[in-house]
Amino acid sequence: MTDIPFPAVAAAIRKSLEAQGFKRLVGAEVVSVEPGVVVMALDRRDEVLQQNGLFHGGVIAYLVDNAATAAAATLIDRLTRTVITAEYKINLVAPSKGDRLTCRAEVVKPGRLLTVVEAKVSCRTDGEEKLVAVALATIANLDIGKSAAS
Amino acid sequence: MTDIPFPAVAAAIRKSLEAQGFKRLVGAEVVSVEPGVVVMALDRRDEVLQQNGLFHGGVIAYLVDNAATAAAATLIDRLTRTVITAEYKINLVAPSKGDRLTCRAEVVKPGRLLTVVEAKVSCRTDGEEKLVAVALATIANLDIGKSAAS
Amino acid sequence: MTDIPFPAVAAAIRKSLEAQGFKRLVGAEVVSVEPGVVVMALDRRDEVLQQNGLFHGGVIAYLVDNAATAAAATLIDRLTRTVITAEYKINLVAPSKGDRLTCRAEVVKPGRLLTVVEAKVSCRTDGEEKLVAVALATIANLDIGKSAAS
Amino acid sequence: MTDIPFPAVAAAIRKSLEAQGFKRLVGAEVVSVEPGVVVMALDRRDEVLQQNGLFHGGVIAYLVDNAATAAAATLIDRLTRTVITAEYKINLVAPSKGDRLTCRAEVVKPGRLLTVVEAKVSCRTDGEEKLVAVALATIANLDIGKSAAS
Repeated sequence: MTDIPFPAVAAAIRKSLEAQGFKRLVGAEVVSVEPGVVVMALDRRDEVLQQNGLFHGGVIAYLVDNAATAAAATLIDRLTRTVITAEYKINLVAPSKGDRLTCRAEVVKPGRLLTVVEAKVSCRTDGEEKLVAVALATIANLDIGKSAAS
Repeated sequence: MTDIPFPAVAAAIRKSLEAQGFKRLVGAEVVSVEPGVVVMALDRRDEVLQQNGLFHGGVIAYLVDNAATAAAATLIDRLTRTVITAEYKINLVAPSKGDRLTCRAEVVKPGRLLTVVEAKVSCRTDGEEKLVAVALATIANLDIGKSAAS
Repeated sequence: MTDIPFPAVAAAIRKSLEAQGFKRLVGAEVVSVEPGVVVMALDRRDEVLQQNGLFHGGVIAYLVDNAATAAAATLIDRLTRTVITAEYKINLVAPSKGDRLTCRAEVVKPGRLLTVVEAKVSCRTDGEEKLVAVALATIANLDIGKSAAS
Repeated sequence: MTDIPFPAVAAAIRKSLEAQGFKRLVGAEVVSVEPGVVVMALDRRDEVLQQNGLFHGGVIAYLVDNAATAAAATLIDRLTRTVITAEYKINLVAPSKGDRLTCRAEVVKPGRLLTVVEAKVSCRTDGEEKLVAVALATIANLDIGKSAAS
């Protein structure tokens, strides 16, 4: 699909994420970028919590958005295509109490036009990972140069 | 449903939102709190953008999460119930280019157990509001004291 | 976008729906086809109910699927494009007790690649319409001849 | 949680599904009912297809709705609780061409109030199973006798 070696693809995705002001504001880190799978994480600090000391739902959604889009980006032809988040659904399934949030996004179905990605978010408490959110996202693969036309 | 006058309900919802570290980090403002409808907004600054200078999708999701939950909270019996976001779906329908993002969340169906909320997010460019996201959320109404048990 | 007059577009959409074996099995009717808005309905009979005498959730989802896709189809260039349902989310907000189910699907954002559609489903009981479901759908607009390639 | 032995629970769930007029109309079969996992299937016939000879999206949604709700029902206390579908999202990821549709629904997070269920739908073509849909559902667990009050 592309002749770009995967390490270069992964580096380009990481660079694109680092260029986001909001990623720096939130303080998220890219843990790993593999073909079809991206993991991101965030350590607890007051600025990313809600009023009861849990990680904010908006922070969880941000991780899902970024990780899902990046996972889709690992599988496209980067010479001709770019990705945008079309939509996602997120279920917050347990209180995100803990000291570190981790989101793992994995492509379930790559497509020419649309890529479907599942994401699971867990929160670490006392060394144990607990599932706190599940998401299902649709990422659109656009021809470069047409992204603003939708 | 409750004997608390609405201005006191609205003040309690605003206070609860202000107590969120993440809301302060993002810099969002509560524009209005009416029965069944909450409007929140956010001005453009580099920290809330993605790599192409658009508002970050995670910021849009954050606004939807907060505004939808607050809209549901306007209609519950605050003496016995509290709200948590169960899930939502968000469609990003156009690039959020502009200087101010506004999210309007409105309850479409209040319920004893679950409240369903629609949200629309617009972005202002050159004085004109353009729809950039549409969302549909389910908010759970919990008995106070049982919120951690789910 | 197209030189086909709208009555011919509407007729083609109706014909396409009538060609569905499942539409005939369910017994749904197309109430109206206007630019961006399609209304479908279904009368109560035992075959479309669940075990408690309510309209089955699967029937409601079927109406949403068909009406949302048809609504998107009213706005595409039929000479070069065709539509498929990419995804949707549906909230069942009240028991669908009654004698007639009506689904109104309306495009909220047409797009070159993706069209976003909202749908509301109501159920008529004793002459009164009650909201029973709300949905948000993403319809993909494909180049004719490429539909099987996704 | 309950003293009812699982085979009796499974039998009650099967009986409840068989009592649905719509299930009989569609012609779906319950393949298996295990704790937290329900599998349903449907063989191809003209009445469950759309205009291009694929399984209809509404049929796929019906299978998801029934199987997800039944999967949630396997884990509740049947003496005091009942289940209703609150909402779900479905991604149709590939054309459902083939002779048999199978939906596997699995609980990812049981809860006191809400159960979250994932479902995957595959279609068999020439003896090979291909993923055609992915879904994420929220099932509400109601106190018996309060189901109509929501």
